[in-house]
Amino acid sequence: MESLARGLAVLRCFAEQQKPMTVAQASGATGLSRASVRRCLHTLTQLGYAVQEGPHYMLRPKALALGYAYLSSSTLVAKAQPILEQLRDELHESCSLGVIEEDEVYYVARAESSRIISIALRPGSRLPLYATSMGRVLLAGLSREDREAYLRRTRLVPLTPHTITDRGRLDTVLTRVAEEGFALVDQELEIGLRSVAVPVFGRKGVAASINIGTQADRIAATDLRVRFLPALRRASRDLSAMGSF
Amino acid sequence: MESLARGLAVLRCFAEQQKPMTVAQASGATGLSRASVRRCLHTLTQLGYAVQEGPHYMLRPKALALGYAYLSSSTLVAKAQPILEQLRDELHESCSLGVIEEDEVYYVARAESSRIISIALRPGSRLPLYATSMGRVLLAGLSREDREAYLRRTRLVPLTPHTITDRGRLDTVLTRVAEEGFALVDQELEIGLRSVAVPVFGRKGVAASINIGTQADRIAATDLRVRFLPALRRASRDLSAMGSF
Repeated sequence: MESLARGLAVLRCFAEQQKPMTVAQASGATGLSRASVRRCLHTLTQLGYAVQEGPHYMLRPKALALGYAYLSSSTLVAKAQPILEQLRDELHESCSLGVIEEDEVYYVARAESSRIISIALRPGSRLPLYATSMGRVLLAGLSREDREAYLRRTRLVPLTPHTITDRGRLDTVLTRVAEEGFALVDQELEIGLRSVAVPVFGRKGVAASINIGTQADRIAATDLRVRFLPALRRASRDLSAMGSF
Repeated sequence: MESLARGLAVLRCFAEQQKPMTVAQASGATGLSRASVRRCLHTLTQLGYAVQEGPHYMLRPKALALGYAYLSSSTLVAKAQPILEQLRDELHESCSLGVIEEDEVYYVARAESSRIISIALRPGSRLPLYATSMGRVLLAGLSREDREAYLRRTRLVPLTPHTITDRGRLDTVLTRVAEEGFALVDQELEIGLRSVAVPVFGRKGVAASINIGTQADRIAATDLRVRFLPALRRASRDLSAMGSF
């Protein structure tokens, strides 16, 4: 089964590099030998997932079907989508659903507002847990032990001048998020971006998070708390009541 | 490299079945032996792409990253997204980009309108070529030989009472689509759905198609032609001019 693991690693490295790649480049990006990468790309090409143009390989749309497999088989995503869309229509802001996966928040569903300045996120996007509202809600839902392990192994990078990079301070913030049942993150991920998130509960505690992301120069932090948070909480209750995630 | 092929087949069958599956069900869906499916699911679970709950396996969000690999590495998708969004903001209707892949149209980018009744399509969705506006534009862009081969091997299913199921008639329609440079499909895929599509040109002819999909009870076919088609053509020219696809 090693060739499956290697093939998936090669597929994924196209997402990280965001461009067509030569065998040598994919070998550098994955840490696999050139011979190994060449065999993988040959198989992926034969199966229709990749195509060769000169020395470069690129992925074909068929690769989309692999990601779609998760989206179309997930009960959580199916139930969340109409709820996110309703919320988006009510608030005229983009709403997302995220889950924790390998120390990141994965966007798994999204309803986008029709603003010209929109935020480039979609199902499959990944962001750091520590600097995002959904990430903090998800971290706050972990056991004490798991939260501490995360804080120990994660480098807290100052993505903006506002990013909390002190472990102790982040730990205190997470405790408050757990108590209050929401996280508000103000330009810690990117200047101009402000968002609020709440947990979605499943059988085993926090199963996911939903958020509303807005532009800081359009929506004040108070608005997020007073106007958006109650609507977000309602949506989360509706989704949590649908179980079973 | 056979285990890579088998593993990808197992991943994809989750998309087709749209639910958690047992080893026996996945074996039935893929035609692979149970032992083989069990080994694949074991590896996928170890790698974090799947999770076992009782006798059932389901995919994890990490599988999304595989589809995202195509989206984030595709020049066409990157260039099309802002153009689709602009078109959506102008017309207040959902706009999509599709490509031909294994006798289907694959949605690879989409800008959704914020209507309450929305059409459940997203990147990764696949639809039959013969009954969709993008599909007909893509078929019309094929060589005479490829078009004939497609018509020979494809069963034209009457998806609604309006679906063209006669090979000769479809062939005539495709010739007109090629001449006029657009396809208008009126409730042949689903009752209530009307759409118009135009080609996007790459170095080797028709590289993709963009369309606008609307509800038939809201937008008349004449509107699609008179109001939407010129905007769609403009967007297609902009995108085609960006090459190189």
